[in-house]
Amino acid sequence: MYKFSTIGLIVKKNDISVSETLNDVHTKLSATGLPVLMEHSTRGLIGGISTVNIEEICRSCDLAIVIGGDGTLLGAVRQLVDHDIPIIGVNRGRLGFLVDVSPDRELGALDAILAGEYTEEYRFLLNCEVIRDGSSVYQANAFNDTVIHSRTLDMLGFDTFIDGEFVHRQRADGFIVSTPSGSTAYALSSGGPIIHPSMEAIVLLPICPHTLSSRPIVISSHSTVDIKVHEEDACNAQVVNDGQDALDLKVGDTVRITRKPKPARLIHPPHYDYYEILRVKLKWG
Amino acid sequence: MYKFSTIGLIVKKNDISVSETLNDVHTKLSATGLPVLMEHSTRGLIGGISTVNIEEICRSCDLAIVIGGDGTLLGAVRQLVDHDIPIIGVNRGRLGFLVDVSPDRELGALDAILAGEYTEEYRFLLNCEVIRDGSSVYQANAFNDTVIHSRTLDMLGFDTFIDGEFVHRQRADGFIVSTPSGSTAYALSSGGPIIHPSMEAIVLLPICPHTLSSRPIVISSHSTVDIKVHEEDACNAQVVNDGQDALDLKVGDTVRITRKPKPARLIHPPHYDYYEILRVKLKWG
Amino acid sequence: MYKFSTIGLIVKKNDISVSETLNDVHTKLSATGLPVLMEHSTRGLIGGISTVNIEEICRSCDLAIVIGGDGTLLGAVRQLVDHDIPIIGVNRGRLGFLVDVSPDRELGALDAILAGEYTEEYRFLLNCEVIRDGSSVYQANAFNDTVIHSRTLDMLGFDTFIDGEFVHRQRADGFIVSTPSGSTAYALSSGGPIIHPSMEAIVLLPICPHTLSSRPIVISSHSTVDIKVHEEDACNAQVVNDGQDALDLKVGDTVRITRKPKPARLIHPPHYDYYEILRVKLKWG
Amino acid sequence: MYKFSTIGLIVKKNDISVSETLNDVHTKLSATGLPVLMEHSTRGLIGGISTVNIEEICRSCDLAIVIGGDGTLLGAVRQLVDHDIPIIGVNRGRLGFLVDVSPDRELGALDAILAGEYTEEYRFLLNCEVIRDGSSVYQANAFNDTVIHSRTLDMLGFDTFIDGEFVHRQRADGFIVSTPSGSTAYALSSGGPIIHPSMEAIVLLPICPHTLSSRPIVISSHSTVDIKVHEEDACNAQVVNDGQDALDLKVGDTVRITRKPKPARLIHPPHYDYYEILRVKLKWG
Repeated sequence: MYKFSTIGLIVKKNDISVSETLNDVHTKLSATGLPVLMEHSTRGLIGGISTVNIEEICRSCDLAIVIGGDGTLLGAVRQLVDHDIPIIGVNRGRLGFLVDVSPDRELGALDAILAGEYTEEYRFLLNCEVIRDGSSVYQANAFNDTVIHSRTLDMLGFDTFIDGEFVHRQRADGFIVSTPSGSTAYALSSGGPIIHPSMEAIVLLPICPHTLSSRPIVISSHSTVDIKVHEEDACNAQVVNDGQDALDLKVGDTVRITRKPKPARLIHPPHYDYYEILRVKLKWG
Repeated sequence: MYKFSTIGLIVKKNDISVSETLNDVHTKLSATGLPVLMEHSTRGLIGGISTVNIEEICRSCDLAIVIGGDGTLLGAVRQLVDHDIPIIGVNRGRLGFLVDVSPDRELGALDAILAGEYTEEYRFLLNCEVIRDGSSVYQANAFNDTVIHSRTLDMLGFDTFIDGEFVHRQRADGFIVSTPSGSTAYALSSGGPIIHPSMEAIVLLPICPHTLSSRPIVISSHSTVDIKVHEEDACNAQVVNDGQDALDLKVGDTVRITRKPKPARLIHPPHYDYYEILRVKLKWG
Repeated sequence: MYKFSTIGLIVKKNDISVSETLNDVHTKLSATGLPVLMEHSTRGLIGGISTVNIEEICRSCDLAIVIGGDGTLLGAVRQLVDHDIPIIGVNRGRLGFLVDVSPDRELGALDAILAGEYTEEYRFLLNCEVIRDGSSVYQANAFNDTVIHSRTLDMLGFDTFIDGEFVHRQRADGFIVSTPSGSTAYALSSGGPIIHPSMEAIVLLPICPHTLSSRPIVISSHSTVDIKVHEEDACNAQVVNDGQDALDLKVGDTVRITRKPKPARLIHPPHYDYYEILRVKLKWG
Repeated sequence: MYKFSTIGLIVKKNDISVSETLNDVHTKLSATGLPVLMEHSTRGLIGGISTVNIEEICRSCDLAIVIGGDGTLLGAVRQLVDHDIPIIGVNRGRLGFLVDVSPDRELGALDAILAGEYTEEYRFLLNCEVIRDGSSVYQANAFNDTVIHSRTLDMLGFDTFIDGEFVHRQRADGFIVSTPSGSTAYALSSGGPIIHPSMEAIVLLPICPHTLSSRPIVISSHSTVDIKVHEEDACNAQVVNDGQDALDLKVGDTVRITRKPKPARLIHPPHYDYYEILRVKLKWG
């Protein structure tokens, strides 16, 4: 007896290197007799199988298996999050923070996972809005981070507000608002702390700040963060969610970041160990 | 009508520089007609007034006013926390993170505060225990941080566990477990992030770690943190709470840190602005 | 008797705020009777005075006075360096690392400087070349830094070689090669050390590196540094000198950085104190 | 024909783990017929061989082979430096920055080295003096670093002067003055840059500084650095050279650091690659 009834398969786009793992996973799944829907990204990788669009996956599946790197998974999370579909990430040989099922060693565990032996984790996303002349002109989700940065080598000046309170005026290459998931991604390269994924916390940090005493600030995920780029720099500024969804800013725009109410559901192998992943990825010890 | 019935006064020990502010505060309080108890630290600073010990303050007061620096306040917090007494911190001219009432500009606000116009904030403390041969041989509270460090210039090797899970093996000058309050103290000098005081979070970070990819980790304040110093280094190691309460460690000791259930109560002036304090203290902008 | 015979005046472009200081300096200089040439950037700021191009300044002057910010001065340095003309930097009220003469307090010292009482300092520049298909397709000087960065939010992969020896393969937002002059500019925001201007040293450092154990490396200014952006990232990469002179890179390009043989000559007031400037600018103490 | 006439052998003290490598090296050397002197640290590790003191090594040898870790080598360097004896460092299986000959792979190269095929490198040391009441009361050399630190958890306040010029007043856990050799040791853990060993540079940096805008400063190795601990902290302060040679400071002491005129001579295998050691030790790529 399986816990899930229909499985969706999504892979990294235009990357032939997922092919072998996709075939292995598909073979595994076929053996279970469960219906499997292949998203268009898998097209041509397994002969004679028709593919469906992501909306069909969202409508029909109660589990998605994503094969690729962390970037592939966070793209899929943003598409699936509103449909409450749990996600498993399978890497292609190199452990990711999110794609933590190894094709070599752990595909054997897939049966167990399908049978309900797994660790489920809820992770919140950010909701990013751009407010222009009083109305919202852009809305996107971020699983890892919302980044405001300069499209040139010039610094940006900006003011930050938390729950309406003025925090600071800064000049920097950019500014990151990161979830715990994102705390081991770009925010980490920029000097941010690691935040345990169970925390209802976000971290705010400048990129290469002019003020040397700037430090990352960890606040509640339930706060509202407003960022206003200074007038003279706004034409160079861009907001980018998860490094994948961008908007050029205009003078007077406010970037508003809140917690998205609906969380993502990640499925991990039964013996999932977050600290083990940290140790391996960050080469500790 | 006042909100408090008996006020305790505590000052920085052996520091004549508090004398003027103490006299100003005492004059203010006397004018209210409320009973005021002077702790022994004030002895000799105001002529003809008898002083009492801290236990008497704990028994009889429902508000404590502490005059000095952040160090004075955190010592007082640890003494008062179990008695549920709210605390006001008055500095001697230089703003502190905790002693945020300025004698020059804000003593006028004291009347308002006594009348109930204030911001009250709960801040949790750490409970630090040392477990030796299976039983607890030391217990102390920390408002800012628990630090394990080497009493020599040698590095310490130690293993860290969170809720029983192994996190890492490190070599460093020491290790800090800090509350949000402590995040702007020693932890900040050691490369930690600022954590908003409202967060139920603690930050763990090594001091001058040998492994260059070490980073601060922010976890839930409800976690149990165990630190075990390696056998060959234990004779050099010491655990220190708030830089004030120390124990030399022995081979085999486990330092266990949990959240103290009872929080401290801090009273701030009505227009308390945490970010303003950050901006001033860290010279932002 | 003056030490200089003809003075050139250069100001920040399109910034009316230099006008007052320019007038003060011009009045001072007129009183000396020395010929003064006004560069085109000063056009319209002092009535009835004709201006000349920078080539004329280079040909005819033996001292240049630059009024503006550090950015103005480093632009002027790159134009004047080949003509051996010493430069004085006058700020508009806010001390710079390079424009260290204050219009308020130190214009009085201008007479003394013109009479030969000053501190002269030689500072080397970088020579940046881009080598494409075996020949040099771009050449520029940098007084502060040569930066290779991504024009998108994607990281760059690149290999670094020092005097032909492979140093490292990195992924980062970019890479900085900085002179001692530049060590207090962008390199400082990116985590680099301060390098005393007298040092024949350059510092190499990644911007937001993926590898957390990356650190700035200080090497001899007489080394040759080669940077090769990885093929798949080259289309996003750009090389920028002093934040002012840029070239988009192509696949296969090598960015080669060497020490420019001819140094710049900076003139400081007699009691020039480098550490005082550090203390003020970095808000130490 | 060998380039050296008498070889001294020094090993890590009281560490039986050097025994096997010592025997291998000794067998190699015996085969050459060259006289070999065994320093007392080797006593008992090879049966039936008499040992000599370090003074005898200094008098009679023209090459020293040191077996152990970087700490063993830097102790030996300080003893041998005044006698102009080149040193080879052999590790016990794990590459060091200084002990770069691997017993497994590179003992075969020993013959070549003895025959003159090697890379020789000069590295300067620091001379550390403590001046009390106008006269020098302590003098020591440091190959890696001179560290002033607090023997308690209290911060130290101190003033720093370079060539007599005041640099800054700081509060920190301590202060490091490091050679290029030391830049990959304690200074690196404290946030310092890597300095290429060929540089005539030293780096000054505070340990966990109170002022968040403090940064490492790289200056000429020919500068004189004076550090004066503030009166109220002097009783807690200690100066330590290479982590091995310490003196407790007293009120009014000046710690003076200059370049030792006589450099150490390090012998490396013919294909010595400094950047390769960095990559391996710091786990780059």
